[in-house]
Amino acid sequence: MPAGNQLRQYSVPTFPPPESEGEESWLWNQIKAEARRDAESEPALASYLYSTVLSHPSLARSLSFHLANKLCSSTLLSTLLYDLFLHSFSSSPTLRSAVFADLLAARHRDPACVSFSHCLLNYKGFLAVQTHRVAHLLWAQDRRPLALALHSRVADVFSVDIHPAARIGKGILLDHATGVVVGETAVVGNNVSMLHHVTLGGTGKIGGDRHPKIGDGVLIGAGATILGNVIIGEGAKIGAGSLVLIDVPPRTTAVGNPARLIGGREKPARHE
Amino acid sequence: MPAGNQLRQYSVPTFPPPESEGEESWLWNQIKAEARRDAESEPALASYLYSTVLSHPSLARSLSFHLANKLCSSTLLSTLLYDLFLHSFSSSPTLRSAVFADLLAARHRDPACVSFSHCLLNYKGFLAVQTHRVAHLLWAQDRRPLALALHSRVADVFSVDIHPAARIGKGILLDHATGVVVGETAVVGNNVSMLHHVTLGGTGKIGGDRHPKIGDGVLIGAGATILGNVIIGEGAKIGAGSLVLIDVPPRTTAVGNPARLIGGREKPARHE
Amino acid sequence: MPAGNQLRQYSVPTFPPPESEGEESWLWNQIKAEARRDAESEPALASYLYSTVLSHPSLARSLSFHLANKLCSSTLLSTLLYDLFLHSFSSSPTLRSAVFADLLAARHRDPACVSFSHCLLNYKGFLAVQTHRVAHLLWAQDRRPLALALHSRVADVFSVDIHPAARIGKGILLDHATGVVVGETAVVGNNVSMLHHVTLGGTGKIGGDRHPKIGDGVLIGAGATILGNVIIGEGAKIGAGSLVLIDVPPRTTAVGNPARLIGGREKPARHE
Repeated sequence: MPAGNQLRQYSVPTFPPPESEGEESWLWNQIKAEARRDAESEPALASYLYSTVLSHPSLARSLSFHLANKLCSSTLLSTLLYDLFLHSFSSSPTLRSAVFADLLAARHRDPACVSFSHCLLNYKGFLAVQTHRVAHLLWAQDRRPLALALHSRVADVFSVDIHPAARIGKGILLDHATGVVVGETAVVGNNVSMLHHVTLGGTGKIGGDRHPKIGDGVLIGAGATILGNVIIGEGAKIGAGSLVLIDVPPRTTAVGNPARLIGGREKPARHE
Repeated sequence: MPAGNQLRQYSVPTFPPPESEGEESWLWNQIKAEARRDAESEPALASYLYSTVLSHPSLARSLSFHLANKLCSSTLLSTLLYDLFLHSFSSSPTLRSAVFADLLAARHRDPACVSFSHCLLNYKGFLAVQTHRVAHLLWAQDRRPLALALHSRVADVFSVDIHPAARIGKGILLDHATGVVVGETAVVGNNVSMLHHVTLGGTGKIGGDRHPKIGDGVLIGAGATILGNVIIGEGAKIGAGSLVLIDVPPRTTAVGNPARLIGGREKPARHE
Repeated sequence: MPAGNQLRQYSVPTFPPPESEGEESWLWNQIKAEARRDAESEPALASYLYSTVLSHPSLARSLSFHLANKLCSSTLLSTLLYDLFLHSFSSSPTLRSAVFADLLAARHRDPACVSFSHCLLNYKGFLAVQTHRVAHLLWAQDRRPLALALHSRVADVFSVDIHPAARIGKGILLDHATGVVVGETAVVGNNVSMLHHVTLGGTGKIGGDRHPKIGDGVLIGAGATILGNVIIGEGAKIGAGSLVLIDVPPRTTAVGNPARLIGGREKPARHE
């Protein structure tokens, strides 16, 4: 039934959910319904979808299982990682609310994202960010060797390199995600979208607060490099391939190498 | 016998093959001969070459086995993937003819490609493109969850992100390949060469036909970013690190950020 | 004990070591002491640190074990790789001295590197370079299929693509490392630092000596692309995102796309 499939895959479900249902349980029900339909239409995936989604009682468990399987190695066992992720997501409503916001961000901002379960299972940017949040908690608890081990696995498996000390908001979309590098003292606000190959890096100054601060709602294009302790104001847009070494005011667009400002509040951006 | 080795590794075999032999069987015989010589000269690789190449009755089986081993995970089993690839390649002469054309493209256009088996076994760009073709078939058959699962595995394992809906010709060389991103509505012609970090992306316009159309014989340099529903004419060259937001006429060279046109049919390109 | 932890993680140990102790055994003792403290403070990592570091009698064995586990696959067995690495590192003081110099380079030049064991275990740039050195030895011994198999595994696992024929000095830091590509005829001097996404590539000229020559002490910023058989003089700096198609004199800075020279011995660089 192609028409039904089209409808299922491309319509974003009614949001917010009915008042009678909490956001988390609403989202988890959506994901399970998607996985059930996919398992029925594609027997080759039924076992995978059952073990990764449908056999779990909550999104926290499903996500923990999936991350543990993706990130384990012959010396860093999936059981250890599963326990670690499950404990972190189960005990932190803040982490779960960020998972929720990130899944919505992908569904609403990426036209290629066909369902919540598609993002949960397949988006390496999403999975890298959730792992980062757990590594960041461990870092704050002075469990740095474990935080760095997670960091390293994410760099190997997803080619995404976010230092555990970096502070990242929620509603984050890392689209495609390969090659993203976020340095130790970087700060990223809420509802930020970054394409692949984006660098939030240092300028070579040794030590200290040396990485960019990205405001809420910023959009950073593919391959953009932002270096140094600069401020990118809320709602700013950074063009693909730009090299940004300066502050960018809110709602302003920066493009080029080196970047120049081309639009602002009263001067609409030409590059989106 | 270093001299013999040199000869074996650097001379491209006579092509086309004798009329008495079909192209596919000629290529498969070449690959087996290379693998046999490598297994003899390097016992450490004998078991690997036997299981991956020499034990198989056809290139379709060898390639399916190799891809299944590369892309499997603890939840997406190699047996499932092997069946899927084998069925796809066995039943589609079009897929097999594209494998043939891509192996020749690597051998003829990449001076670092020393043998067909080197490309078959080691080129992640080659392996990513073959997987994409299978994912694209599944997408066309409305088996989208499985197509997206393959897409995701290729993004994890090879750091190559080609949306299953993208249409890609044959004789394709993705050299080095890390970080290549090709969007959902992109179209790539025949005999196109792309270096690593190339993006065929959108400009942020939501939905619809939003990605580049690349003509036959185009060469795209490392790190070039081509955004939007623009047309890159046949035989055009896109310089490394360019940001292309405009159409590029046939046989013309575009370089820079943003890209400008510097050569055409009567105005030979200075940047290759 | 956060204060103690801070001290342990951020102070670089006295160097050079006391004369009574060889450099190699001094470094190995440092690494073991770090791993012991981390295993005590983080039981979740104890088994991993024991099997990867503490159970081994030497750095050569620990590194060989770690590389073999990272790079093995279902067809390229960890036992085979372990033997290969161990034989190479054990029999070559040159390789071991390069390991030593690279660990010191990361510890001294990267402010985010908190310990030698952090680099040994987690830096994919470090692990990629050590594997390259073994592949380069095999290439020189005309064991090219095995060299290319290692090359391919590093490209898959670490997204770092260094051709086995490329000649690389010691004291090398590949920071973040994702997407680095170094071509067949490239030469890299000692004490060179390269950020992620750096390309030392060709211009499309077929065959021959076609890749850059990088002098001692050069620093290459994130995403820089250097193409062709050009010479980057000692101590030069290449800005992030630059496209370099020309020679760069010693101690000079090049920035931009295409790159221009902006500083030299008497004209201090503005971009670091």
